[in-house]
Parts: sequence; C-alpha cells; structure tokens
Amino acid sequence: MGKDDFVKEITNIEDDFTQWYTDIVRKAELADYTDTKGCIAIRPYGYSIWENIQNYTDKKFKEVGITNLYMPVLIPESMLQKEKDHVEGFAPEVAWVTIGGGEKLEERLCIRPTSETMMSTMYSKWVKSWRDLPILGNQWCSVLRWEKETRPFLRSREFLWQEGHTVHETQEEAEERTKMMLDIYADVIENLLAIPVLKGRKTPKEQFAGAVYTYTVETLMHDGRALQAGTSHYFGQNFTKPFEIKFQNREGKEEYAYQTSWGISTRLIGAVIMAHGDNRGLKLPPKVAPIQVVIVPIAQHKDGVLENVRKIYDKLNKNFRIKLDDRDNCSTGFKFNDWEMRGVPVRIEIGPRDLENNQAVLVRRDTNEKEIIEISKLEERLTSLLEEIQKNMFNECLKRKEEKTTVAYSIDEFIKNLEKNQGYIKTMWCGDVACENKIKELTGAHSRCIPFEQEHLSDTCAICGKKANTMVVWGRQY
Amino acid sequence: MGKDDFVKEITNIEDDFTQWYTDIVRKAELADYTDTKGCIAIRPYGYSIWENIQNYTDKKFKEVGITNLYMPVLIPESMLQKEKDHVEGFAPEVAWVTIGGGEKLEERLCIRPTSETMMSTMYSKWVKSWRDLPILGNQWCSVLRWEKETRPFLRSREFLWQEGHTVHETQEEAEERTKMMLDIYADVIENLLAIPVLKGRKTPKEQFAGAVYTYTVETLMHDGRALQAGTSHYFGQNFTKPFEIKFQNREGKEEYAYQTSWGISTRLIGAVIMAHGDNRGLKLPPKVAPIQVVIVPIAQHKDGVLENVRKIYDKLNKNFRIKLDDRDNCSTGFKFNDWEMRGVPVRIEIGPRDLENNQAVLVRRDTNEKEIIEISKLEERLTSLLEEIQKNMFNECLKRKEEKTTVAYSIDEFIKNLEKNQGYIKTMWCGDVACENKIKELTGAHSRCIPFEQEHLSDTCAICGKKANTMVVWGRQY
Repeated sequence: MGKDDFVKEITNIEDDFTQWYTDIVRKAELADYTDTKGCIAIRPYGYSIWENIQNYTDKKFKEVGITNLYMPVLIPESMLQKEKDHVEGFAPEVAWVTIGGGEKLEERLCIRPTSETMMSTMYSKWVKSWRDLPILGNQWCSVLRWEKETRPFLRSREFLWQEGHTVHETQEEAEERTKMMLDIYADVIENLLAIPVLKGRKTPKEQFAGAVYTYTVETLMHDGRALQAGTSHYFGQNFTKPFEIKFQNREGKEEYAYQTSWGISTRLIGAVIMAHGDNRGLKLPPKVAPIQVVIVPIAQHKDGVLENVRKIYDKLNKNFRIKLDDRDNCSTGFKFNDWEMRGVPVRIEIGPRDLENNQAVLVRRDTNEKEIIEISKLEERLTSLLEEIQKNMFNECLKRKEEKTTVAYSIDEFIKNLEKNQGYIKTMWCGDVACENKIKELTGAHSRCIPFEQEHLSDTCAICGKKANTMVVWGRQY
Repeated sequence: MGKDDFVKEITNIEDDFTQWYTDIVRKAELADYTDTKGCIAIRPYGYSIWENIQNYTDKKFKEVGITNLYMPVLIPESMLQKEKDHVEGFAPEVAWVTIGGGEKLEERLCIRPTSETMMSTMYSKWVKSWRDLPILGNQWCSVLRWEKETRPFLRSREFLWQEGHTVHETQEEAEERTKMMLDIYADVIENLLAIPVLKGRKTPKEQFAGAVYTYTVETLMHDGRALQAGTSHYFGQNFTKPFEIKFQNREGKEEYAYQTSWGISTRLIGAVIMAHGDNRGLKLPPKVAPIQVVIVPIAQHKDGVLENVRKIYDKLNKNFRIKLDDRDNCSTGFKFNDWEMRGVPVRIEIGPRDLENNQAVLVRRDTNEKEIIEISKLEERLTSLLEEIQKNMFNECLKRKEEKTTVAYSIDEFIKNLEKNQGYIKTMWCGDVACENKIKELTGAHSRCIPFEQEHLSDTCAICGKKANTMVVWGRQY
C-alpha cells in the first residue's frame, strides 16, 4: 500500500453507503469475518468501544438497583415452548444442540436467542412473598439468532448484549421500570454516543414476541435510514402465568408478578459508525472513543523530539485515553490519515519548532479545525475541547434528524418524501395493521414508533383516510 | 423456618464437606440448579464475587498490555480438528449444534470448550510482519464442556472464564508471557482471594492438550484437597504451524510465531467457599466480598434509632460496600446468623444505648471478636479492620497449607500421610508416567505440579526407587 493513498481505499460514503460501512469496519480493525458463517470476531479496537458502553451503562444500572447474574446459555426445548407468542417468534431462528459428550440428547437444547424463559423459570423458584420482590436481574452475555442476511454489528448471528429481566409486586411498579430503563438507554445513546433518539412505543405489529407493549429508542443514520437502538418491554403477567411466578401479596393472597425485560447490544457500535462516520472514515465521540487523543511527533528522528514528546504523553496519559504514534516505518501524512480513519477525536502534532516555541498543534477530527496551544495549557484545553467535540457531534446528528424528518398527509406524499429524503416520516394513523402492511409493501418502510411526544397533524390516517388520533413515525430500517 | 435454628440447616463441615459446600452455595444464594442439566444459574450475590474478581484481574491484564476482544461461540468441526492433541483432548466433551434456522447444517458446529483454534485462525489473518506482533488478546466469556459429574462452580458444564491468547515474535518473549500471566493469577488468588498458592509446572500427563508445557497455581481447600486455580500454557509453535500464524521476521524471513494461552474461571468462587468457609457458613475476604460491612440496628423500632443509623450508613456508604439491614420481619439474632452465613466480614451493631454513648460495636466474621468504637472513628477503624481481616484470613490458610504439607519417601508413607492429612505430599519423582499412574490407582491422588521452588529430598523416586532429580507435589483434587 502506498503511503498517501490510504483514504482512497474506503468507498465514497455517498456512492455506496453499505460498502463504505464494511470498509470502515474492516480497515479500522473493529471486526472481521470468521469461518463460522454469519458470526464476526470483534477486534480489540471494536471491543474497547463495547467496554466503554458497558461501563457507562452498567454504572447507570447499578444506580437504579439492578444486579447482574448469569443464566445458562442452553435452554431446553420444552422450556422455550411455554409461552406461545414467544416460541412462535423465536423458534424459527434458533440453533439446536442435539449431541453432547458424544451422545444424542433426549431433549434438544437451543442456544439462547433471549432468556425470558430461563429467567422466568428461575425467578419462579426464588419468589415466594412480596418481600422477595422486586428482582432486578441483568446479564451481559451473547445470544444467537439464525439470521439469513448478516452484517457486522448490525445483524450478526451471534451478538453481545445485556438483557435485563425484572419482576414486580404491582403493574404500576413494573410499568415505571419499563420506562426507567428506556430512559437509561436514551441517556447512553445521547450522552455517551452523541446520537439523538426518538422515544416511543412500538405498534403491536413491531413489538417483542410475548410483550404487552414495547418501548423503543430509535436513531437515524447518515443515509437517513433508521436503526432501533434499544427496547424495553412490559410483559404484564404474560410470562409470570405460564412460568408460575407467583407470590403472597401484602393481603396474604396469591398473585402473579408483573414483569419487564430490556436490552441493548453491540448493534450500538454499528450505530456509532453509521451516525457519525464520513469520507475520511470513522468518527468517534470522545466519551466512547478507545483513544481520545493521538500524539503524532513531527520530524521524530530529530534530536530531543521523541524524548520531549514522551514527557508530554506521560503527563496527559493520567487524564486521557491517549496514544503516542512513534512508528518509524510510515510517514507523518500516513499517520494523520490512519488516525482520522480510526476516528480519534483529537490529534496533537508536536515538532522541533513547536517544542522551541513551547506549543503544540491540535486538530479536531469532527471539523478538521486546527489550533495552536501552549504546552502548559494542553491538559486544560483538551478537557474543554473533548467536551466541545462531543457536543458538536450530537448537534450535527440532531440537525440531520430535524432536516430528515418530514410530514406526510397521503401515500403519494409519503413516497415522495421517502425517495427524496429517506429519514423519519410522520403521519396520522388509524391503528390498523393493514395500513402498516400497505406502507411496507409500497415503500419498504416500517413504523418506527408511536412517539411519546404526540402531535395532531390532521384528523385522518394518511394511508387509508379513516379517522385517526395517533401520530406514527415511519422509516426504512437497518 | 424458626428464627434461631438458622445455622442448623447447614451440614457440619467436618461431617460431610461435600454436603456442607452445596448447602452454602444454595443458602447463601450464590447459585442455583437449573433445568439445563449440569448448568447452574449464578445468582446476584455469587455473580458479584465474580465481578470483583473480573475487575481486579482485568486491571492487572491491562497494565501488562492485554486487550480484550470477542470470538464466536461456535467453532466449525474442521477447525477444531486442525491440531491433533487438542482435538483428542476436547472433542469427546463438546456439545454439537447440528440444526440452525430450521435446517440441518452441512458442517456441525461445537460450542467452544476453549478457543485456541478460533483465535489461531483469526490471528493468522492479522499477522503479516514482526511489526504486527505481539497480539495480546483476551476474552471474558462462557465455555461448555460436557462433564459427567458436575458441582456448582467447581465442575459445571457451562462456566464463565477468561481465556487469554497471545502470539509472539520469539520463543523467549512467549515464555516470559506464560510466566507473567501465571504471576498475575498468583496475585489475584493470594491478594484478592486470600488463598496462598503453590506455583509450578504440570507434569506432561497433566498438562493442557496441545501445550509444550503448562504452568499452574494450585490451592488447598479446608478438607485438604487441592484445587487447580489457574493455568498458563506455553504452546511453542504447536498451533502456529497447523494454523499458519507466520510472519516476516526482522531478517526478512518467514517464521512461525510463538504462542501462549491462560485462564481462570468461576471455579475461583468455589475455591473461596472451600478455602475459607466454616460451620457458620461462607467467610469472604474483604477485598472480594460483595458486602464488606453490614449494619444491624438494635431495637430499631425505638425512637431515633433507624434515623441515626441511616446517617451513619450514608456516611460509610461512600467508602465501603455496605448494607443496612432494616428488615422488620426477623429478629436481630436471625440477622446476625444470616449475615454470618453469607460471609460478610464485619458486622456493626448500633442500638439506643450505643447512640447515647456515641459508639458502635464491631464484630469480625473471621475471629468472632467484638470491639467497641467511637462513631466518629468508625471509618478509620473499618479501613484498618478490613485489612487485618484480609491478612488474617490469608495467614489462616497459609498455616493450614503448611500443616497439611508432608514429605514421603515411599509409597507406604505416601498412603499413610494422605489418609491422615489429605493435603500436599512432596516426593522425589523419576519422571516416569508409570509412577503417576500407580499413585493414582493406589490413592486417587494426582501430581499437582513440579514446584518452581525445588528441594532435594533424596536421590530416589518415592514410588519406584529409581534415580530421581525432581520434586513433585501430589494431592487429591477437585
């Protein structure tokens, strides 16, 4: 590879977004394909993003009383079948273990596609009285769903996630928890990943198999397609009845508990790539970036340069996730491109003249703006600069979301908006699944959600013209 | 359950250690059996111990350059078969997925029993030049081995662990890494878990399938049986040749890389239970205890007691993992027993008279000693007390290890020592596997390791009488 044609190897983002995405995933060493079809290897740089998401989220979970636990990866077939909607939703896409220790199993075991059935089975053993409630369990683990078409992070047969499962004494408490966990996801996605969310409730057609209702946080990608970034489900007693999670309530009567589940996954890495990336490659929000700052020494072969730069590195290393690129087998230009492609938010350039003048050059990944700063003020400036970048990246995404959100009062208008813009399309909706099916058939778009923040656009459904009280947001999806 | 016969429900530790262990695991809510045979559910209290082990260990890993990543849980059969010794060792105990997405698979996939084959396959794609080395990868994940007899934490079909896999430019660097990671395990087990280790090399009979050699850290449990607590393997080029992990070395020549792997698992939770527990239940070292301090208010119904105790709790909560037990449906005596059974290192008792006198009572779980302390000095005293407990628990284990370590110069002596003491038995050994087989047949003991710290006990093998230069430590094992 030539030293200066680095960026050319990434497909232009406007020409072929899908190929651009794959190029970034592989060239930035986020993930790689494996010999297990449909499954990826998450490389250290990609996994480090996941660790940052985990750390931030797990802390928020613990602040609201969530405790981590771990359930078996294998679920007996009879257990999976206890809740009717659930098994219909998941059975077609599971992987079955039929042989263990050299022998054919009497009952086959599936690799968990999600753990409602296993959690509910165990919870039913642990709950006797209202005093045992709530149980606020969560596990960080991998799950497997036999997808036909796969794409790294976005749709992989195996993926990493967390699945929270709670049981409660009252419907009210369970519904509050469903909302509380959605709000944590919104916090993670907006404040850590710098992507604005649209919050709402899924239509019954799009909700989780077995839920009473599903809340969702939706996000919009660079190309105007939507990505469901996290969901929180209220189950009512749909699982607690077949799995017999019952307890003696405060009045001494037996009652079935009320249940929730909620999850986010390594999909969020895909969201970060697609929401922020550009033609120079990945662009990472400082809070989630594995490397927040890279120092590239200029003319590093010259006397004293590396020595002095290392001292600066050592000092900054205490407060930032920082990397010193002292490779001697590639040019400075190559290094600039390389770290831009990997999405590092800030580059510091320091050469002999800078050292003489007691200064350094800072370059922002998000705007490409340069500034010169006294070395003694580096630490202070980096702190504020990283915050500015985080904020600016969020605002850029918010601007796109606003630009790409349109209103449609008829199918024709819907189709026109979608072709022009992709993005979110708001319409009034009568509540009939037939209208959802029609939109999907005509445009490939799905209802994203019934937003919590409702607007009354008109009195009639944009699809069928019948009376409508509900505003729905639609879009094509990943 | 009566309020005061709590402890009676735990089997006496000297009468039936196995049953005692199971009682603790279940009554302290560390884990539970599931409907997936041989697999446990790790409950929040048990999982929290694992999280503390993970946090401590992962920090040590990162200090020596280890980066986390994630590889697929499913390994194609053809991949597993590439290294001959390895497949012989693991194929009999794997679980096979034969159906995915409703269709029979062309090639069956096993659930990883360990990931040498998958890691090596991926590393071979990522390594081209000496500049790409070393790769210092690790994953925290679950693995599955189809064990016939299982026991919670000690031998479970599925268990959680970390598996580190590194590849290096030179044999020397790889061998140093093998030792370095063993030293980190010794640090974790001695300094976090307060269990002294015996470090050494496994005999060829006991080493990992595919390794050139295996280092181990061995521990001794309450009943004198040994438990292998962590291993670190040097592979040489055993995997890099069949998996073609080759690179252009500094001389421009193609060479196969040198490899290591190393792991610790949720077995360590079993080690903590069995090394420290007693007839009152679990006994947790402060550094790994999910709850380090429990406050039990005395006469909590009296005016001002709970209010004042909550203030103390709020203050201590900043620096300790602390729990306030304000349950109103059980007696103070029940609470004492309950938290002792759960192994909490320090109990604080505060009642109306204590509040009047501005004091609290501290009770140590390890020695049962009480002391009275001014409330204003609680924080300072807790800090030093937790350190004392940690140290004392280590010393107690060390004393047992020393008492239960004996020397044998003949088989008769070996048998006599083992029957009397269990424990570690040191002998000279000729190096012949026949002597290991004989010991196993006669006594059920295995060689634990060839300790790094060798002693010259005599000139002849204690088993066959032939010339011997090597000291081996033996013992019955978990």
